[in-house]
Amino acid sequence: MTPLLDEFNKKSLRALSKSISAAENRDPQVLEMLAQLYGKTGNARVFGITGPPGAGKSTLISHFVKYIRQKKQSVAVIAVDPMSPFTGGALLGDRIRLIDHFIDDKVFIRSLSTRGKLGGLSVASRQVIDLVDAFGFDYVIVETVGVGQSEVDIRNLADTTLVVLVPEAGDAIQTIKAGLLEIADLFLIHKSDREGAEKLQNSLSDVVRFADKQTPVLLSSIQREQSIEAVFKNLNSFYEKHQPMIQERKNAAAKSAIVELIESELARAAHVWVETKVQNPGNPYTFVQDFWKTHRIDKFFSQ
Amino acid sequence: MTPLLDEFNKKSLRALSKSISAAENRDPQVLEMLAQLYGKTGNARVFGITGPPGAGKSTLISHFVKYIRQKKQSVAVIAVDPMSPFTGGALLGDRIRLIDHFIDDKVFIRSLSTRGKLGGLSVASRQVIDLVDAFGFDYVIVETVGVGQSEVDIRNLADTTLVVLVPEAGDAIQTIKAGLLEIADLFLIHKSDREGAEKLQNSLSDVVRFADKQTPVLLSSIQREQSIEAVFKNLNSFYEKHQPMIQERKNAAAKSAIVELIESELARAAHVWVETKVQNPGNPYTFVQDFWKTHRIDKFFSQ
Repeated sequence: MTPLLDEFNKKSLRALSKSISAAENRDPQVLEMLAQLYGKTGNARVFGITGPPGAGKSTLISHFVKYIRQKKQSVAVIAVDPMSPFTGGALLGDRIRLIDHFIDDKVFIRSLSTRGKLGGLSVASRQVIDLVDAFGFDYVIVETVGVGQSEVDIRNLADTTLVVLVPEAGDAIQTIKAGLLEIADLFLIHKSDREGAEKLQNSLSDVVRFADKQTPVLLSSIQREQSIEAVFKNLNSFYEKHQPMIQERKNAAAKSAIVELIESELARAAHVWVETKVQNPGNPYTFVQDFWKTHRIDKFFSQ
Repeated sequence: MTPLLDEFNKKSLRALSKSISAAENRDPQVLEMLAQLYGKTGNARVFGITGPPGAGKSTLISHFVKYIRQKKQSVAVIAVDPMSPFTGGALLGDRIRLIDHFIDDKVFIRSLSTRGKLGGLSVASRQVIDLVDAFGFDYVIVETVGVGQSEVDIRNLADTTLVVLVPEAGDAIQTIKAGLLEIADLFLIHKSDREGAEKLQNSLSDVVRFADKQTPVLLSSIQREQSIEAVFKNLNSFYEKHQPMIQERKNAAAKSAIVELIESELARAAHVWVETKVQNPGNPYTFVQDFWKTHRIDKFFSQ
């Protein structure tokens, strides 16, 4: 057993933090750790919260944290940020830290962001969720910024996914793509004191029905705290009522983890090979055609 | 020669459109076509325009198209959209089509969006740029929405990249990450009639100097059309003045194309293999550890 794993098993938050950094940095020792820790995962309720910037996700999450602490349970909040150079990095960690009345050792907050490569965030996020799950947190809340492609992965990372919209999204309801319907276990129209909330609730409910789904469309507002507590209760009851489906998702997630880990290692090898072996690429398309004449991927997989 | 390539070589716009769709769908016949067409690429000026939604990129581009047509030259506009389920697909094509006074067969407009897989957009975008370049367009303007990770690739797709900001970005200047400095050949503060434009120009110029760069920071406004024409002239003079660097970029882009094509084929094979061979993933980390014990990627590459 590595010293880090040893410390981790002794519930050292410092060891957890170090393991998460190692996952972000794609340090191979994390794989070794996770291979040994995987048996301890599967006990946390993993809730994904996604939605456009400014939808109020962080405020919702800070309330969820409060409810969890009122029940004396523990929670890890993981903010996953695709790191747009325009919007800056994930700020949730900093914002939520300010609300310090609930900051104790049963509340763990961490922002993850990409270190360059596309897809790397997905591998790291999954590993970090497995790490905090294995560490023993009762809840894991995964916040993803609803821009770019990365939020599509949330369904594969979380047990239950809440999609947060604001009333103004109603103007763009026709642009809310089918993808969202597939992601959402619950829709929430937050800031529902603003104009257009009921209208959006109605039109989104129509869309849900039209797609032959039963996804609830909730309303909440910071002005009515019970509405936020109701959202949290809905997440929990969804989790409790849909156990067989959630187990299927966990199974699919484990398969995705395998694909991603193999893929990322193959990608790394391809990068290194091209960087070291290809001096003058010439016609890249001819190059790749020739490459596949001599490199048999089918043989690789049938080893 | 395939019938599609034959039509393409006869300058059929329908054949071009079909080839682009094939690239989006990852149809292998595109690789075959591109292998034969690659020798005809490298003549177009490929300008990348990136920036946050609402920065006025489409309006700028519609002016650039006008200037290009005034010189009787041809242009292909490619809008690359990471397809956020919240923001909807790329609308540039539709928006720009409305300004129909310059729509003729020397102006080709196309929106690309992802079909699912992360990274796929980058492969397809590069192929589409090569297709329109080989088709004979004098200019290729690539618009990317500055959200998510995908815009980072623009440097590798375009010869010259313009990063468009608006005066309001000044409030968030500290969040404009170093990545942007690496992407931008030219910064533009558009909508400069709004408050804060000069202030942002000054602070951004400070950042540029501090990073030991010479990236110009331009101002433009739709109210002063000469300011927009000046941006277009700046793009052209950057392209003309930095030919050795642009050739290096093209060389790097060809290498990236090779990496991406090999990577995406490896990823596809990994997906298929896991889907067909892995019934019960169990502990995915142990699974992957075992996988690498029997599957030798070094041997695959040294074939």
